[in-house]
Amino acid sequence: MSSSFGTLFKIATFGESHCAGVGVVIDGVPSRLPLCEADIQVQLDRRRPGGNKLGTERNEADQVQILSGVENGLTLGSPIGLLVKNKDQRPGDYGSMNQVPRPSHADYTYRAKYGIHASSGGGRSSARETIGRVAAGAIAEKFLRETYGIEIVAWVSSVGQYDAEAVDLETITREQVDAAEVRCPDRAAAEKMTEEIVAARAAKDSIGGVVSCVCRNLPAGLGEPAFDRLEAKLAHAMLSLPATKGFEIGSGFAGARMRGSVHNDPFVQKAGRLGTSSNRSGGVQGGISNGEPVYFRVAFKPPATIGQEQQTVDYQGNQTVLAAKGRHDPCVVPRAVPIVETMAALVLVDLALIQKMRS
Amino acid sequence: MSSSFGTLFKIATFGESHCAGVGVVIDGVPSRLPLCEADIQVQLDRRRPGGNKLGTERNEADQVQILSGVENGLTLGSPIGLLVKNKDQRPGDYGSMNQVPRPSHADYTYRAKYGIHASSGGGRSSARETIGRVAAGAIAEKFLRETYGIEIVAWVSSVGQYDAEAVDLETITREQVDAAEVRCPDRAAAEKMTEEIVAARAAKDSIGGVVSCVCRNLPAGLGEPAFDRLEAKLAHAMLSLPATKGFEIGSGFAGARMRGSVHNDPFVQKAGRLGTSSNRSGGVQGGISNGEPVYFRVAFKPPATIGQEQQTVDYQGNQTVLAAKGRHDPCVVPRAVPIVETMAALVLVDLALIQKMRS
Amino acid sequence: MSSSFGTLFKIATFGESHCAGVGVVIDGVPSRLPLCEADIQVQLDRRRPGGNKLGTERNEADQVQILSGVENGLTLGSPIGLLVKNKDQRPGDYGSMNQVPRPSHADYTYRAKYGIHASSGGGRSSARETIGRVAAGAIAEKFLRETYGIEIVAWVSSVGQYDAEAVDLETITREQVDAAEVRCPDRAAAEKMTEEIVAARAAKDSIGGVVSCVCRNLPAGLGEPAFDRLEAKLAHAMLSLPATKGFEIGSGFAGARMRGSVHNDPFVQKAGRLGTSSNRSGGVQGGISNGEPVYFRVAFKPPATIGQEQQTVDYQGNQTVLAAKGRHDPCVVPRAVPIVETMAALVLVDLALIQKMRS
Amino acid sequence: MSSSFGTLFKIATFGESHCAGVGVVIDGVPSRLPLCEADIQVQLDRRRPGGNKLGTERNEADQVQILSGVENGLTLGSPIGLLVKNKDQRPGDYGSMNQVPRPSHADYTYRAKYGIHASSGGGRSSARETIGRVAAGAIAEKFLRETYGIEIVAWVSSVGQYDAEAVDLETITREQVDAAEVRCPDRAAAEKMTEEIVAARAAKDSIGGVVSCVCRNLPAGLGEPAFDRLEAKLAHAMLSLPATKGFEIGSGFAGARMRGSVHNDPFVQKAGRLGTSSNRSGGVQGGISNGEPVYFRVAFKPPATIGQEQQTVDYQGNQTVLAAKGRHDPCVVPRAVPIVETMAALVLVDLALIQKMRS
Repeated sequence: MSSSFGTLFKIATFGESHCAGVGVVIDGVPSRLPLCEADIQVQLDRRRPGGNKLGTERNEADQVQILSGVENGLTLGSPIGLLVKNKDQRPGDYGSMNQVPRPSHADYTYRAKYGIHASSGGGRSSARETIGRVAAGAIAEKFLRETYGIEIVAWVSSVGQYDAEAVDLETITREQVDAAEVRCPDRAAAEKMTEEIVAARAAKDSIGGVVSCVCRNLPAGLGEPAFDRLEAKLAHAMLSLPATKGFEIGSGFAGARMRGSVHNDPFVQKAGRLGTSSNRSGGVQGGISNGEPVYFRVAFKPPATIGQEQQTVDYQGNQTVLAAKGRHDPCVVPRAVPIVETMAALVLVDLALIQKMRS
Repeated sequence: MSSSFGTLFKIATFGESHCAGVGVVIDGVPSRLPLCEADIQVQLDRRRPGGNKLGTERNEADQVQILSGVENGLTLGSPIGLLVKNKDQRPGDYGSMNQVPRPSHADYTYRAKYGIHASSGGGRSSARETIGRVAAGAIAEKFLRETYGIEIVAWVSSVGQYDAEAVDLETITREQVDAAEVRCPDRAAAEKMTEEIVAARAAKDSIGGVVSCVCRNLPAGLGEPAFDRLEAKLAHAMLSLPATKGFEIGSGFAGARMRGSVHNDPFVQKAGRLGTSSNRSGGVQGGISNGEPVYFRVAFKPPATIGQEQQTVDYQGNQTVLAAKGRHDPCVVPRAVPIVETMAALVLVDLALIQKMRS
Repeated sequence: MSSSFGTLFKIATFGESHCAGVGVVIDGVPSRLPLCEADIQVQLDRRRPGGNKLGTERNEADQVQILSGVENGLTLGSPIGLLVKNKDQRPGDYGSMNQVPRPSHADYTYRAKYGIHASSGGGRSSARETIGRVAAGAIAEKFLRETYGIEIVAWVSSVGQYDAEAVDLETITREQVDAAEVRCPDRAAAEKMTEEIVAARAAKDSIGGVVSCVCRNLPAGLGEPAFDRLEAKLAHAMLSLPATKGFEIGSGFAGARMRGSVHNDPFVQKAGRLGTSSNRSGGVQGGISNGEPVYFRVAFKPPATIGQEQQTVDYQGNQTVLAAKGRHDPCVVPRAVPIVETMAALVLVDLALIQKMRS
Repeated sequence: MSSSFGTLFKIATFGESHCAGVGVVIDGVPSRLPLCEADIQVQLDRRRPGGNKLGTERNEADQVQILSGVENGLTLGSPIGLLVKNKDQRPGDYGSMNQVPRPSHADYTYRAKYGIHASSGGGRSSARETIGRVAAGAIAEKFLRETYGIEIVAWVSSVGQYDAEAVDLETITREQVDAAEVRCPDRAAAEKMTEEIVAARAAKDSIGGVVSCVCRNLPAGLGEPAFDRLEAKLAHAMLSLPATKGFEIGSGFAGARMRGSVHNDPFVQKAGRLGTSSNRSGGVQGGISNGEPVYFRVAFKPPATIGQEQQTVDYQGNQTVLAAKGRHDPCVVPRAVPIVETMAALVLVDLALIQKMRS
């Protein structure tokens, strides 16, 4: 039910924080795609909690192993199993939390749902669940790039009160994004954001932020009318990520303030195709890509796990105080950048393969 | 692919603006639910373009007919077919648009996707496609209400620059919402909104807005980890609606500005269960309902069809001017209210039935 | 759940014997396919209970109406809604059966499943449910024929003890099949079969039979490894038909008697492709079509509804005697011929569209 | 697409003969089910090619490792990843086959489908693909046994010309089945079957057979009308197994010879429920379980890989001779017994969980 995604390019993820490993099975990868572990590792490395001042101290190698579906460097068309072993298992850190559901965490709801929850960490609500996604997304991305020239680039556009200047959707690159540890291509804003994260950490607190993303070079025609509109699939994908609270495409919530005469994107003749002179639609009209860049923003709340003491109650309803001791990120958005890219890739590859039925 | 939604409570909609009819087949409706056409008609009537100053002039009866699945006023557990005949078919109004793709409309993308598009109106991208959804949602809602006491209420929270005051999520009712034609329960704001819509119409223009929605009395435990989180399914459902540009749940984009110590919702003992003293989570933690009200906001862009002249190009790339002549709403949000409710109901009923596998 | 079939060419059927109508919504029909109601009606007419000595006396026009998805004789790519109104509603005939579950009928199991069942007839277990399938299958077939030249022909290969001679899989046509009312192309066998059916009717009894089917001109490559093998999908499709008890492809159960040296199909060079000199595989190897004719057989039990008195018990367990009074077929296989063809078409079209993802 | 199965209890298998490993991800396993590797290993051991006179010489430990979803001996409700490493990789044995598609094997069709195939062995068409299924099925079975008391027992009912006597469906056990290496509980037939297999091996040939299976103690009500009838799902599941050519339930093809008065199963009062005095229906009426034993038979062709020389052609169409050198079973049915059980369990668990939506 819950751990698979996609119709033709279908992934099934598995694993929680402290079991033997996390991973994914990907069914529907086109055959004869050149693929090796390094193709996948690059995005896993980008999502990995770094050994730096912004991330947690947990540093796992997160080395991916291809279990199946690839031979002599080419995909076979059969399911690709990918495994990343869990090396750092410290369940002891969380032991005391079993009596007290952590505020704004999933302990309480998992117990309500399953009558049990993983004794440590967030189980499937942990960010570690996203490893399988990112591994799968790296393959999706490679296919999209080689087949259509599609490029997907995400970046941090806000942390707390600090916003980045608008970036050039046509030219922004991952290299530019990764130039700052906070993954904001606006240098001045990046500095402010970094300071904000450091300050939050110093205060044993956490801070939220926004990740923006652009997908370039999509052919017109991707996305299915009615329920599987491109923006609906993207929204689904993004809100399935831990800690997300919002999604907007193109003009987004600001578009709801506008008049149609201002909001509409006039058609113009571009090289070899019709295009639009503005792009408040976000590259999508009627749920279908129109060939312009698809861009969207995803809101991430501040991480729920903080070192400060919090007033709360235990499962029996008794008032108590909770303060996290385990590792935790003060801000997830820098690490969320490759995860947002991966989910975009998973949406696009599936819609692209579906659209082939019409070829 | 695109016209079905849901796993256990599964709907398949059909129909465009100017064919014989629109409707839906619903598979998975629990048996022995009392059901008659009036149960469905009430929401259809709420979504219908009214004969008033805010809506279009098109006034179709939109009478629903139950084709199957109900006998002697009870559901049989078999698929329920629902049909609403199209009465008002004026394809002539749109004839001239066949040479010119309407800006920010789906003409161009449908042609790119299918190599053809409905000769008139928006085809499946038209608001008329939502009739099948609303009819299905009315059944979902009835089941949710009778089984769990779930209440779903949406309202217009902004039109253009005008915002409603915060409403009481615990008590807001549809009656309060429907008291103003613009479906905003804040009377002062409702007046401003109405003026704004009338002004937009007078200017042959259109205006966007935001619909807010609350779902009360959910049991804890609805929503599936990883890809089918409650908020992910809601986001998918809402962004599958025509003209939507954004979705946010609980604290939403504002939450991305906050620190964790402020954002976290402390647990407290409530009558017979644990609850939270604040609800920035929006009733969802780790993708699973926690028993608090689920609330979210959906951004709608201004309708693309406007009477003003617009500079654009035809399919051959020749510069031209376009001005809509057919009927069109200056603002969709008042009519979107029951549609947002319906999509919420369709998400919740499916997750509720899935959760029964764990009973 | 239960009333939809297919992944890319997806159908959702609805309707039982005595509601307003039966029909289907088909999502995923390729656009720009020429289509009119007559294209669909031809197979509906073939499945209709005839006014002849072999069928029941019920004679409904079963006229199909296209509700959506077609304009100016071309498919739009949007969902096609099809409706066949129920004209002959005689619930009174079945009234007495409400106290006594009919032996080998679905009354008892529907009540166990749903806590209710349609007051008359077999509800969704009735043959009338297949109307939606046949209507959808006619469209699938048209696409397959026009795109790949695929031909699907089924015939009655046995009734009771009487078997038809082997037919030529390469040349058998529907015209040859329909030459006899019993739909067996072997004239001598057809006479015996007809006599057997007439005898069964005279004895207020019923009789079983087998339908064989061949699908010609499939491209190599259709069918998905592991769970969605071509033969698995066909088996699923055929056993989803009322009254079926068995399915075999190629050598079938007889193949289980053979040695590999006899059973294997040697490859040979054929015009423009590799083929096999025998075809015990039934056109499928490893679950994927190899370009040879796909052929299979489907066993149908004798209809459960018979005029003879049967000893049974009522729902309270009291011994009683039951004899059907309503209309009923003594043998379903002649009418099952187009239904088997339709299910084959629905399987093939879906696999063909899926295979396009690899183009 | 092809490597996942199930709606609520959903499995995704991966792996081919000579990659790092084979396995499965299972989503939807109910939480709090006691589970350890030994629960799974028992069926894996039964399916393993034995070191005996009937199986191939390949003897891999096939030790399963639980990667996720289980903690402290209880399932968490999260996806369970299972991995069995491939130890015996002898791709060299198959090298010569790359120029010549093996008759009745999947080499040719995989190449047609994917433009590539695994350089050795049968890729996903290999029996090794079933390891993931069997591992998943063992969990399904445990749940069914503990929740409903469901028992599933399969056995070899024919090899070549030799048929077993009818077994007692109410009492047959796996211990009785496993008493003979050929897994036929009829001792006299088992001897003949064994001789036949030994003879086929001696002749460098292979031989087909039939596996029968019974599922006892199903509650009434499992199976979904129309497309997901219990027998349709079983047929799908069984025909998705390598080397299968037919499926029949209850009276099967023999039922097609009968009259209704003989075939119908009269209802009788049984302890605490209605039952039937005969069971030609095979425990299913209208696609839904009626509480009587569900039993069915599956036909397996003789393995395509034989040591005898076969006349065939290479990919260029040149006449050649092929004789297999690698390991190969002369008869698959003894090993197929647990695989048939596993597929039955996978079907039943999914239908049982779906039926809970009606609780």
